[in-house]
This record gives sequence, C-alpha cells and structure tokens, in this order.
Amino acid sequence: MLAKAEIITIGDEILYGQTLDTNSYWMSGVLDQAGISVIRKTCVGDQKEEILTSISEAEGRADIILITGGLGPTSDDITKQTLVEYFDTRLIPNPKILEHIKSIFSRADREMSDLNIAQADLPENCTPIPNPLGTAAGMWFERHGKIFVSMPGVPYEMKRMMTDSVIPMLIDKKVEDVVHHRMIRTIGVPESQLADLIKPWEDELPQDIKLAYLPTMGTVKLRLTTKGSDLPAMKKKVQAQIDKILPLIGKNVYGFDEEEIEEAIGRMLKERGLKLAIAESCTGGFLSHKITSVAGSSAWFNGSFVPYSNELKNEQLKVSKEILQKDGAVSESVVLALAKNVKEAFNADVAVSISGIAGPGGGTVEKPVGTVWIGYADEHKVMAKKFQFTMNRNLNIKFSAMAALNMIRINLDKN
Amino acid sequence: MLAKAEIITIGDEILYGQTLDTNSYWMSGVLDQAGISVIRKTCVGDQKEEILTSISEAEGRADIILITGGLGPTSDDITKQTLVEYFDTRLIPNPKILEHIKSIFSRADREMSDLNIAQADLPENCTPIPNPLGTAAGMWFERHGKIFVSMPGVPYEMKRMMTDSVIPMLIDKKVEDVVHHRMIRTIGVPESQLADLIKPWEDELPQDIKLAYLPTMGTVKLRLTTKGSDLPAMKKKVQAQIDKILPLIGKNVYGFDEEEIEEAIGRMLKERGLKLAIAESCTGGFLSHKITSVAGSSAWFNGSFVPYSNELKNEQLKVSKEILQKDGAVSESVVLALAKNVKEAFNADVAVSISGIAGPGGGTVEKPVGTVWIGYADEHKVMAKKFQFTMNRNLNIKFSAMAALNMIRINLDKN
Repeated sequence: MLAKAEIITIGDEILYGQTLDTNSYWMSGVLDQAGISVIRKTCVGDQKEEILTSISEAEGRADIILITGGLGPTSDDITKQTLVEYFDTRLIPNPKILEHIKSIFSRADREMSDLNIAQADLPENCTPIPNPLGTAAGMWFERHGKIFVSMPGVPYEMKRMMTDSVIPMLIDKKVEDVVHHRMIRTIGVPESQLADLIKPWEDELPQDIKLAYLPTMGTVKLRLTTKGSDLPAMKKKVQAQIDKILPLIGKNVYGFDEEEIEEAIGRMLKERGLKLAIAESCTGGFLSHKITSVAGSSAWFNGSFVPYSNELKNEQLKVSKEILQKDGAVSESVVLALAKNVKEAFNADVAVSISGIAGPGGGTVEKPVGTVWIGYADEHKVMAKKFQFTMNRNLNIKFSAMAALNMIRINLDKN
Repeated sequence: MLAKAEIITIGDEILYGQTLDTNSYWMSGVLDQAGISVIRKTCVGDQKEEILTSISEAEGRADIILITGGLGPTSDDITKQTLVEYFDTRLIPNPKILEHIKSIFSRADREMSDLNIAQADLPENCTPIPNPLGTAAGMWFERHGKIFVSMPGVPYEMKRMMTDSVIPMLIDKKVEDVVHHRMIRTIGVPESQLADLIKPWEDELPQDIKLAYLPTMGTVKLRLTTKGSDLPAMKKKVQAQIDKILPLIGKNVYGFDEEEIEEAIGRMLKERGLKLAIAESCTGGFLSHKITSVAGSSAWFNGSFVPYSNELKNEQLKVSKEILQKDGAVSESVVLALAKNVKEAFNADVAVSISGIAGPGGGTVEKPVGTVWIGYADEHKVMAKKFQFTMNRNLNIKFSAMAALNMIRINLDKN
C-alpha cells in the first residue's frame, strides 16, 4: 500500500492572504521524493475548533498527518494546546528541549523570557523532534496506526526538521509502492500547440503512464507519472516514452526533471568554458538574480549592470547620447549597443541585454507598456528581438527574463 | 452575517510539490479586502472523486466556493466535466465565448485546434465569466443559496477574472459584517523580544481586537483584527491602539499595512529628493530586483552593479587589487570602497554595498558560509557592518537584502 499523507497548514495569516504558503509546497516535493503520496492539503485558521475538525477529517483519509504552524511562543499560537486536547493528554516540561532553548539564547547573548521557557513544555504522549534552528520543538504522535507530526511554521526550521528527522522516521515506517515522475521542460511553444505537436505520441501513451501539462511564464512542463513497486522497470518504461517524444519537440526542450532554464544555461556555458555578462534595465536585477540563484554560478557568470537611468546607459556602458535621443532607450540599437559593450567591459564571451517598458507608467502609442527589446552578443554574432508582453509590471519583468534566458539557450544551441 | 468563502485549488502538480500555489494566497487577500472571510483552503488532485468530495464538503461549510485549476484544453484537465456531473447538467457550445477564443488566435496569428474550440462548450446552468487574457472561460453557478465559481489556474487569467468580474459580482450579493485589519511592520527585533516589549500594551488590548505576530526574514508584522458592522468606529478603535503601541517599538517600525520595506525606503528617498545606487555581489541582483519591483522606482533609483568576479570589483568600481588581496572580497574595506565608489560613479546620494559568502561553497574557518559585509555611504557618512546568517544560499541572499534595506532605513531616519 502506498502511504497517503495529508498536510494541514495552520495560520490566519494564510487565510487572510497575508502570507504565501510555501511550506506545504516544499513538503509535497520531499514527500513525493520519498515515495509518499500527498492526497490533500488543507489550510485552516488559528481557531481551536477549526484545527480539531481538520485533524480529525484528515485522520479519516490519510495515514500520515503533517501539521505546520502555530507553535510560536506568543499568545496567538494555539496548536500545541489544541493537540493536547485532541490526544487527551497534558503538557510536561522536557529538560532536554529546555537545555536546547537555553543554548540558543546564550549563543545569541539574549535574555530568555517565560514565554520561551514554556516552549519546553510538551505533550506527554509525543516524541519530541529536535529543532536545531529554533526554539519550538516538533512533536511526533502515533495512535491507531496513524502518524501525526506537528512542526513550526517558520520555513527554514520546518525544512531542517523534515530533512533531518521526519522523512527518515517516515521511511523507517516503510512504504511498499512508489511513485515515479519524469519532467520534460519546454519553452517557447504554447500549451495547446504543444498538445497538437505531441498528439500522435499522446494517443499511444500506455494507460498506466499519466501525462500532465504544467504551463508557467512561457514554459510548459510535461510530466509523466507512474505508480507501482518495480522502480527499475517503471523508470525504463517512462524513459522509452521520453525517447519517443523528443523527435517531435526536441528544439523546445531545455531540460529534464528539476533543471530550471537558468541551470541549463549554466551547464551549457560551463561545458563550453564561456562567461556570461548582463546589462538589464527594465528587469532591474531580476535576470541576474535568477542566474545567481544557481549555486556555483560564479564559474560562468562575471557580473551584470542595471543602468536604470539613461545617464548610466551612456556614462557606464558607452551607449551614445545620439542613439538614446534618436531611437529612445527601448530600441534595437540600444540593446545591441548594451549587449556588445557589456560583453567587452565585463570580459565576457556571451552577453544579453534588456530594455523595455515594464509599466505601469512610461508607455506611449508606439511603445506601449509591455514593449521589450532583448539583445544578444557572442563572438560570432550580435542580434536583437522585440517582444510585446502584458500590461502588468511584475509579469513583464518575469516574461522578459525568461525570454532573455531562452535567447541565450537558442544561440548556444546553434554554436 | 459575514459571508464565508472556501477556496479549492485543483492540480496534481500542487500535491506533488511541483507548483507553488500562489493563486489561493492572492485570492485570500482580495476577498479579505472585500470583507469576505476565507474559512478554509483545500487542495486536491486532478481526480474526479477527490474534486466532487471537496466541493460537497465545502458546500457544507461555506457560502461561497471558489475553485481554480483544471480548465486547460488538454486531456488532464477535468474540472469542467466534473462540475457538469456535480450539477447534473450538460455542456452546450457558447457562441460568444467561441468568438472570443477565435479572436485570441487570430490576434496571435495561430491556428485553432479542436481542443480550443471545445473550450467554448460550457455547462448549461452556469453564467460564463469572461477571460480577457485566455481561452478558458470562468463559470458562475448558484444553487440552494450558495455560490460556486470555477476559474482557470493560470495566475494572471484568474486574477483579471477575479478583479473585473467575480469580486464585483460577489459584492453585489452583499455582506453585512466586515473585517478590519491593520498591520504594523517591524524589522530588526526577534518575535519573542518584541512580545516582551509590548507585553504591557498586549495585556490591556480590548478583547474584540485580535493580535497576531507574523515573522518572516528578519521582520515581524503585528496584525490587529476586528470584526463588526460599524467600520468607522472599528477603524478609530484600532488606530487608538496603534497610537498606544508606537512609543514602545517606534524605532523598529518601518511601515504600516501593505507597505513593504523597499516601498518605505522609496518613499523616504523621494521625500528627501535623494537617489540610490547599489553594488551587490553575493546577493547577485536580488536587492536591485526588490527595489525595482516598486512601480515608479526610477524616480529615486539610478542603477546598480553586480560585480560577481573580483576582477570586475577592481576594474569597474576601482576597488584596489591590494585591498582585495589583503582583506579578501568579503571584508569591511571592500564594502566601504564599493559603497563610496558606486555612489560616485552612479551619481547617487545614497549607496549600499553587499559582499558575502552565500554558499554552499566558498566558506573558510575565518569566513564561514553566511558571512556577509554590508556597506553604506551618503553625503554625511560611510559605514559598514558584518552579519552572520545561515548555511543556506537562498536564505543568505534574502537575509542580506533585508539587512541592507534596514541599513538604508536606519541611516535615512537619522538624517
């Protein structure tokens, strides 16, 4: 039997739309990796009755109930007290946890308050889970063959606890069936067009392999999923389908599985021994951030320049005042000059440049909000392309960065 | 009676941890603004039985059920068919929606497929909701006094639909009671220390005002919430509590309500007529991205420089090779030089600089991963401070950017 898990996130701030729930997203991913299937996620507020109901409903559906949030020291956090009621138990002080809390405070040279001391009181029937990064211990309960885990809502505390303790403890409890996923990552082709391209392949896909289209920001991920007990056979069967689909869409595929496009580009640059430089205006640092979020990017990324004012485009990257005046900052000639000049100034082999009108202000009839020019330069060529994105500032920043990454990919592919 | 809403998010990709659910987060916020209380969020997979159960459970609890996801043209999207079953109705072609889908394809100069034509078939008992940005129409159902709305999962399509149609339609249906929130945003003081500081105030807080602590990335937001029908009186009562708490924590408060710290800094710079420049190394563009995500930031932000290699720190920002060699790139002398030099080179009045070891590689015994120096320069002073963050690359990037923003705030406050 495949172990089924349900995730319960507790917090008014999530229901009010003040906090984005990244915890259950991350947890789903690591549970999936461990072969544990998440069948539902629920978010409820910091109200005792709501929490009790959601745990009891989850107990009816799932084998493993993972709860995050509501373990802070302050009065609005009520998860621990609610669990005491759910399991009809009582709080007792845990000396080992108290020792840990004390060590955190002494390391930070801070005074402990009564609120922090009370964090060492834990339900009598639970196994405490260490929280190396914080003062709220996790709690592991077992009853009627079901497992309940309560963890803090602070993302890095919860993640460390899951990785170091909860996942190993769950794996110890054994699961027989596993899920196997593969992901084919495409860019530059819309979802329905992609569906047409792969229709003959999809029609012949074996019934036990499930296909999903996952579109985001100009990319579409194709996910192949299968469940069973013979992992090597499952892997082979899915790989055979990937080999069959690639001839149909190969030029739009930038990577597989967890590889993001910025990682794929890093891999390509590193293999070829090339260095990248960036001059980005309307994206304001977002493209550089995507690039440098890849660990080890210093091996293939020299640096970037965000010339937000026209003055800096001229003074720092030698785009002539005449061009800026005649064609405007959002123009082919400006992005070509930016790409060429930043490549040279930053000792790079490949450069990309972006200039556009992100909005909400700055649009004109000829160049409405969403108009973006992207330039590219390497040792063989210099080119530029115009894009028309949306009326939304945030989307324009993201679409522009994706288009620039795709332009690098396509040009490196050709070389 | 306060209208209660429940949000159901449909998609295997969310349960598998492959997609972060930002939709329900955004929806909660706009519903809250409209005075509609979200009592629960649920996420289920693309399975008919799961979807049917979750809608029927939500119908038992809430007045308004908002559903996103599963409306794409491809075979893995089953929400529409499932709703047909739930309401025991049938699909009929909608000529107006078909016209709209055709116009999208002709504008993009693309061929329409049968899959796209089938998107114009809608349940007979629904009111279609226009989707100006995409081909999947929304659907509004009413039954037994409850409202059900189905929307696409593509975030910008759903958002436009909510803003233009769903929220106005819900407001039309009227709600009597409203929720009033205020948020006090603090930085630089840990949650439990903040709780100690405000304890005398919290002890005397009226019972009908609820307090919550929302900590994230070095900031803690204090949320005050009250419910009722007399909004002006509620506002006055909450404001009186804010006036009482400020003397206790004023120097840690950077803003109120929705104002992010980068917006607060923009406001301060604009009021004083000052321009900002940035030199950021280990944060790789993330600080600039935060700054330029503020609409209108070009009025107070000149630009930034991401000198990822030491070579560029020397060549582009004139940090001497001797200093780089003697003290290393992550040092007080280097961030001081970077801040001073970028301020001058970018014609700015205020500059901030960051150099650190984000990890996972690059740490040493003296400078472990998480060591970050931040420099600051304005016309009055030049200063730098050392921070020790975590072992996690992504967290170090975010904590560093927040610390740099706080350093700008504190120095502007003093001037």
